[in-house]
Amino acid sequence: MGIGDINKDLIRERAKCTFNVTELTYFLDGGKDKTLERKERERVMLTKREELFGGTPDEYLSHKEKYENSMRKAVILFSLLRKVQKENNTDLTNYRNLLSGVLGASISQDGSPFGLHYIMFMPVFMSQADEEQQKKWLHRALNCSIIGSYAQTELGHGTFIRGLETTATYDPATQEFVLHSPTLTSYKWWPGGSQLYSKGECHGIHSFIVQVRDEDTHMPLPGIKVGEIGVKMGLNAVNNGFIGFDNVRIPRTNMLMKHAKVLEDGTYVKSKNSKLIYGAMVFVRVVIVFDSVNYLAKAITVATRYSAVRRQSQLKEGEPERQILDYVTQQDKILTAIAGCFAMKMNARMLWDTFNVINDQLHKGNFERLGELHALACCLKAISTTDSSMFTERCRLACGGHGYMVSSNLPPTYALTTASCTYEGDNTVLLLQTARFLLKTWRQIDTAPLTPTVQYLKTVSTPGYSYKWENSVEGIIRGFQIVSMKKISSCVDLMTTKIMSGMSQEDAWNTVSIQLVSAGESHCRAIVISTFHEDMSKAMRSMSEPLAEVMGQLVELYAVFWALERLGDLLEFTSISGADVVKLRSRYEELLRKIRPNAVGLVDAFDIIDELLQSSLGAYDGRVYERLMEEALKSPLNAEPVNQSFHKYLKPFMQGKL
Amino acid sequence: MGIGDINKDLIRERAKCTFNVTELTYFLDGGKDKTLERKERERVMLTKREELFGGTPDEYLSHKEKYENSMRKAVILFSLLRKVQKENNTDLTNYRNLLSGVLGASISQDGSPFGLHYIMFMPVFMSQADEEQQKKWLHRALNCSIIGSYAQTELGHGTFIRGLETTATYDPATQEFVLHSPTLTSYKWWPGGSQLYSKGECHGIHSFIVQVRDEDTHMPLPGIKVGEIGVKMGLNAVNNGFIGFDNVRIPRTNMLMKHAKVLEDGTYVKSKNSKLIYGAMVFVRVVIVFDSVNYLAKAITVATRYSAVRRQSQLKEGEPERQILDYVTQQDKILTAIAGCFAMKMNARMLWDTFNVINDQLHKGNFERLGELHALACCLKAISTTDSSMFTERCRLACGGHGYMVSSNLPPTYALTTASCTYEGDNTVLLLQTARFLLKTWRQIDTAPLTPTVQYLKTVSTPGYSYKWENSVEGIIRGFQIVSMKKISSCVDLMTTKIMSGMSQEDAWNTVSIQLVSAGESHCRAIVISTFHEDMSKAMRSMSEPLAEVMGQLVELYAVFWALERLGDLLEFTSISGADVVKLRSRYEELLRKIRPNAVGLVDAFDIIDELLQSSLGAYDGRVYERLMEEALKSPLNAEPVNQSFHKYLKPFMQGKL
Repeated sequence: MGIGDINKDLIRERAKCTFNVTELTYFLDGGKDKTLERKERERVMLTKREELFGGTPDEYLSHKEKYENSMRKAVILFSLLRKVQKENNTDLTNYRNLLSGVLGASISQDGSPFGLHYIMFMPVFMSQADEEQQKKWLHRALNCSIIGSYAQTELGHGTFIRGLETTATYDPATQEFVLHSPTLTSYKWWPGGSQLYSKGECHGIHSFIVQVRDEDTHMPLPGIKVGEIGVKMGLNAVNNGFIGFDNVRIPRTNMLMKHAKVLEDGTYVKSKNSKLIYGAMVFVRVVIVFDSVNYLAKAITVATRYSAVRRQSQLKEGEPERQILDYVTQQDKILTAIAGCFAMKMNARMLWDTFNVINDQLHKGNFERLGELHALACCLKAISTTDSSMFTERCRLACGGHGYMVSSNLPPTYALTTASCTYEGDNTVLLLQTARFLLKTWRQIDTAPLTPTVQYLKTVSTPGYSYKWENSVEGIIRGFQIVSMKKISSCVDLMTTKIMSGMSQEDAWNTVSIQLVSAGESHCRAIVISTFHEDMSKAMRSMSEPLAEVMGQLVELYAVFWALERLGDLLEFTSISGADVVKLRSRYEELLRKIRPNAVGLVDAFDIIDELLQSSLGAYDGRVYERLMEEALKSPLNAEPVNQSFHKYLKPFMQGKL
Repeated sequence: MGIGDINKDLIRERAKCTFNVTELTYFLDGGKDKTLERKERERVMLTKREELFGGTPDEYLSHKEKYENSMRKAVILFSLLRKVQKENNTDLTNYRNLLSGVLGASISQDGSPFGLHYIMFMPVFMSQADEEQQKKWLHRALNCSIIGSYAQTELGHGTFIRGLETTATYDPATQEFVLHSPTLTSYKWWPGGSQLYSKGECHGIHSFIVQVRDEDTHMPLPGIKVGEIGVKMGLNAVNNGFIGFDNVRIPRTNMLMKHAKVLEDGTYVKSKNSKLIYGAMVFVRVVIVFDSVNYLAKAITVATRYSAVRRQSQLKEGEPERQILDYVTQQDKILTAIAGCFAMKMNARMLWDTFNVINDQLHKGNFERLGELHALACCLKAISTTDSSMFTERCRLACGGHGYMVSSNLPPTYALTTASCTYEGDNTVLLLQTARFLLKTWRQIDTAPLTPTVQYLKTVSTPGYSYKWENSVEGIIRGFQIVSMKKISSCVDLMTTKIMSGMSQEDAWNTVSIQLVSAGESHCRAIVISTFHEDMSKAMRSMSEPLAEVMGQLVELYAVFWALERLGDLLEFTSISGADVVKLRSRYEELLRKIRPNAVGLVDAFDIIDELLQSSLGAYDGRVYERLMEEALKSPLNAEPVNQSFHKYLKPFMQGKL
């Protein structure tokens, strides 16, 4: 097979695909227009292909060289993007498209140096800076003539923001805030750029603009101790830093004052509605859900194409070796991951739409659905990142030893997606937040109106609600809704019993917290499956028949997969029978068989170009072994036949001279 | 807190431990003598502390520098070990202790350059070389004056060894074998040193000694194309390579001839018993199970100590922040991982003992239990590596953002343990092997005698066997045995139905393979829990009462944890009731509360010295934040206030000049 040739098995796979791949690509991008926009951004990017993707791969470089190289590439990429950016680049939709498209997929396997500027600094700034501050900084920030970060987490505090130790003390005499890090644990840890926010004293957490470095020399300004925090599992192109303040003075007007204010004389003016601040936080979680989809799309593209190219073992003596995608245990890993990716894509869209609807309501002073939005964003962030990590890792393991090679891009993709299980709210903590909302909802179920995403709790708990298990997608969704309802009500009962027996509210909460997390998860599963089912069913109406058929199969596979994964819940809380379970297993195997022929078509539709996929195993042409060898030969260790360490260390050792 | 001080919370934790930590350490090491031997090895190693553990941490180095640095450190360490090695260092027990002790724990976060020499080359050589060959090479190999590797896997073949493409053609004229790599996919891929074995033609796979490099210059010998395969997720200190042969000639006597032979005239003499060769393969899997314990012991030590030091959030308003180990969701992650580590320790010992008993029988010509040993080693390797990865990753995630830092050593530990899910038999393939043995056993259950580890299949399937679910450890074990039996019998029935309806044996096997894997897993769960329970119960008789009490709690926690994890199985196949499940959950929470005070004591007992733990979060003194900062400050990026990339790239970009 020469360069430029396509692997024969992939050609065969593509030929037998039953649907129009381009039709699916348009759907995934959100319409033909969006696809063309994306391809235009990619075209522009590829005008600098060699500068962006040539040279020694990052994995061979030292930590410092990696940083320098990603900075070099980032300025090239962002200069190009500045050119294609629309006039209305302050619009959040456009932002999300940019971030979750080219930037989300990233030019590096290891994150982007400007990621935090766009994903954290800009949204927070836009939601918290007053008009004057926006006038002063927004244009410069959009142009990257200042690059911001978001410095909240400290060495000693993450989850519990009320415990942050950095102080900002207002001095009316000079009309300045004095920022100070009183302890080692108050050092800001993880910020990923060069500007930061911090905390006000007494009045809780507030945000400040602090210039960290001199614009001309880039030297840290007086009183600022700044550095990088060291090597991480992934995201090493994001130069996460630490920062400490030794009585650093900033003007009063550097506190972001759209909501709360400090007047010249030091008078603190409370925010009229402190809840508006949640908007930016939810926005970031929406972006994370989209990111999960993107990471997983990469992993499934790599694993599916590799599984079609890789041949191993004979099913029957004398036959040629089989494509590993023909083994049902492989389909179990790969096809469910594909379904998971589509499911999360539909849910990300739902969350984005819900966010926009409710955010509009918030700005009109209607806070009715704020609790719901918060609970929804919490659990969808948790479930999408957990699932994306789990499926990505299953895909990686399904690629065997070659999946362990960094050149496959599977290990770095896992490192990125698992990071999102922690940042912007640890998933366990987020599911507890959702559970708190659910318990509150349950306690008021007969007295307060229910918001849409918890409406089902009323339905399935209404006396006389008749439910008989059904092995259909609708039946499974109802099953998950019942599981969620019963777990919530059981938690409420357990809490009550414990409190009645003298336990404090807080201790009771802690004692049942494993079950609370589990309730939050079940609620989210019900939402994710039903959103996938309902939104996809709507979308299928305008799809061609062959595509709609495959989408229907994916929805059912996803529902059956999770039913079998959470069989304990269903057996404990619903009327599913042993015979139903046997049928579900057989249906699951049948769905794998039906979807198998379209596997390559399904991942091709994500249309991730080789330059962004960056995988020796996953490239469009399937030249797997050639690329593995080509990548290996780029190792500087292969530039010379004998490494110097032989003469320095190994030879004297082997000769017994050490 | 100054250097040398111990964190106050850790002091408090240690003070309240209810058992004697040293007593447990002796037990874990296998006796006081073994502990003293280990500590002597560590003492010798620490005579070169600065050379082995000083300098810039590996994670900041380039790939090439990492290799050179680990080679430097490896020769220092192995020179020291040569000195402490006993005379009888060909004995496998001693080998295992060395490998699973200091070497298994490793001087580097990323594997050891000589690992494969000891763990693969030596055992295979010892089991396959005839007397003359042993005389010629064994002493040199033990002394490391030759360093070997094991080169079986090829770019195109791993699992299916019959598909290997490298050829070894005997030429009687010169009495040589001609080794040849006919294709790119026949290149050996993954070997980790510099000698190799390969495959004979026609007569299946055989092993050969091939000199790869010149002993003096280390240049590759003529016809040999050798290099390294590039950066991996972990194990980067193991210089895994590729190798290809262009008609390389080696003497006839380089074929390992203990079993099969090729005579001078080319006559092939079959092995009298080809099964003896399984011994080395099983030995390697035994070592892997011990490795899983070691990796997990590191992860739980880090996560437990950090969780005792880290304080976050208040349970009640106005209280000081709580140690995160007080949160039940954290205990759920950490304490179960501790129990999992102890469980796997007992099972590794059982496998080692079983291996020795059966290996002795094999050498006496008794092959009755070979199938059982193979099935047992397969599933224990699969389950121990899967569980160790899962628990390690749960521990890492439980440490939040700081657990993502490489300086925590959690990401590298995960990378090492997850690798073992793939090498020496992909876990899915191994569980299918176990399932094959189980189905065979099931089909003969009334006609053939049962070997010990499957005896339970007869017991629980005997007509009239009366079983009522019990929430005790014994009850849970019986439950898992019933689950295993029912899954096996269900697979047999499914296979039969499919074959009766015209499907081939092989297609039927493939179709139900997800359920076969599941049956293999359930069988192994039954064995792991019952081994932990029975062997620990025996051991507890000679333990002090306080220690025995804690060990009993760990056994029960482990059993209950897996019962809840596999609740679907139990609800589907046993008589467990909803009320039993509710009680199990409450018992689980109770056990967490009971074990919580001893958490730090339990991990202290593993007695992993800071130099081998290599973790900023897990050191004995609990100086978590100080160490995080110290490690960060070692970053070469922190050696200068402004990186050159600012002037080269960032400044022109920020000024809009790009």
